Amino acid sequence: MKGQPGVMAAWARGAAAVRALLLDVSGVLYDSSGEEGPGSAIPGSVAAVRRIKQSGLKLRFCTNETQATRAKFVQKLQHLGFDVNEQEVIAPAPAACQILRERGLRPYLLVHDALLPEFDSVDKSNPNCVVIGDAADNFSYKNLNRAFQFLMGLETPILLSLGKGRYYKETDGLKLDVGVYMRALEYACEIDAEVVGKPSKAFFLSALADMGVEPHEALMIGDDIVNDVGGAQQCGIGALLVRTGKFRPCDEEHPDVKADGCVANLAEAVDILLKQRQQ
Amino acid sequence: MKGQPGVMAAWARGAAAVRALLLDVSGVLYDSSGEEGPGSAIPGSVAAVRRIKQSGLKLRFCTNETQATRAKFVQKLQHLGFDVNEQEVIAPAPAACQILRERGLRPYLLVHDALLPEFDSVDKSNPNCVVIGDAADNFSYKNLNRAFQFLMGLETPILLSLGKGRYYKETDGLKLDVGVYMRALEYACEIDAEVVGKPSKAFFLSALADMGVEPHEALMIGDDIVNDVGGAQQCGIGALLVRTGKFRPCDEEHPDVKADGCVANLAEAVDILLKQRQQ
Repeated sequence: MKGQPGVMAAWARGAAAVRALLLDVSGVLYDSSGEEGPGSAIPGSVAAVRRIKQSGLKLRFCTNETQATRAKFVQKLQHLGFDVNEQEVIAPAPAACQILRERGLRPYLLVHDALLPEFDSVDKSNPNCVVIGDAADNFSYKNLNRAFQFLMGLETPILLSLGKGRYYKETDGLKLDVGVYMRALEYACEIDAEVVGKPSKAFFLSALADMGVEPHEALMIGDDIVNDVGGAQQCGIGALLVRTGKFRPCDEEHPDVKADGCVANLAEAVDILLKQRQQ
Repeated sequence: MKGQPGVMAAWARGAAAVRALLLDVSGVLYDSSGEEGPGSAIPGSVAAVRRIKQSGLKLRFCTNETQATRAKFVQKLQHLGFDVNEQEVIAPAPAACQILRERGLRPYLLVHDALLPEFDSVDKSNPNCVVIGDAADNFSYKNLNRAFQFLMGLETPILLSLGKGRYYKETDGLKLDVGVYMRALEYACEIDAEVVGKPSKAFFLSALADMGVEPHEALMIGDDIVNDVGGAQQCGIGALLVRTGKFRPCDEEHPDVKADGCVANLAEAVDILLKQRQQ
């Protein structure tokens, strides 16, 4: 499962200009096993993160994870051996909280129980919008119907969706992601949701601003051809697709998005990148 | 809530040519109260059905109901006082069974428990397609995820959806309909579902064939501007919108579909229709 040398060369030639990396987490650093366990690190990825940090490259972990608070999520990654801290993680829930405050929005939440603490400081009385995240088992008919009724009762229905992913991979198989339920509510209410998280431009740009780099100085690495690769490219950020996580061979032939390069895994990407920098 | 005389006149002028009526059921004949109770007949609708039958007009009940077998559904209507029998009801599940047999499809079913007996005679071993109906509480995350995984495992994913409605109204509020979950699976799997039931042309045409009438001789009456009115009109069948059931005032200003007439309820439609026939 090595990348084709010809394909790699294209992005690798520009690798010397890269000053900052954006890494997707699930499917790039580790494979999730769901709520029950910590999942497992993808071989070579713990060392790859360490090598990135030692190289002096700037680094942010850019995740659409909404099944845990950022603090718990970081703890899980540290438990798996990753050198990561909370300030390095860009996640949708904190970004959504900022939007809610800026716009005076009070959310009705349909999210995973474990995410609720992220919204502790947000006014949720007399809601005037709905926020959905990857609620997993909380996506019951009853709960989705309540969110629907809520939106239908608003004069101007506002739906914030923490990501728009179709599915992700856990160790026991593919799982429906928040985007599927976003589409469901969009259709039910005849509205367009506002996406907070990848692939929204604002989300990628906030990560760049946090590092103080320009789009052409950054490289995104992810396993989601649309949300990681397509999203980054829309901002002028180069993007690599890894053949781990939920990657499927047809992703390399996607009708709308073509990655700047495909690599076997994060370790291979970092190998090539650091070699180019040394030349 | 009387219809505007000017608007009524347009369709009423052609009423003398009408030989057959197609009636939507939920929201036209009765308001559903969900699984627990029988619901309640909409005032005047029991008498209206009786008057249609006495008039000699042909009649079919054209429903997207998939929370019960046709037999149980008819029992419920009879219990509410309606003169209706099973042969007069056109419903998606029997239509789907016919399609499954014709095309050699073996379904994985995500439907309401009460609908399962309709599929008793269908081969469900080693499934090669997914059929979804208005599964209500069976639309759990676990069940929807199983249907998703199933579709993703098929070389040619085939999804039959028993209707594509957005929502319906029960006595305790609006409820998400099967179309919402159809859209969810379409997005998750990047496929287009095949709709069995309203608004599919085949469904309306089968009702006309059953009565032996041409489209211009029939009139559809429903509370769903898209699935009842728009669906019938696509087949050349005139269609009235009733202001009962899930009707909302904005339905009269729908961007794509304009009813041939709007009436307060079924009783008013039948009043006008029968008066025109007598002239």
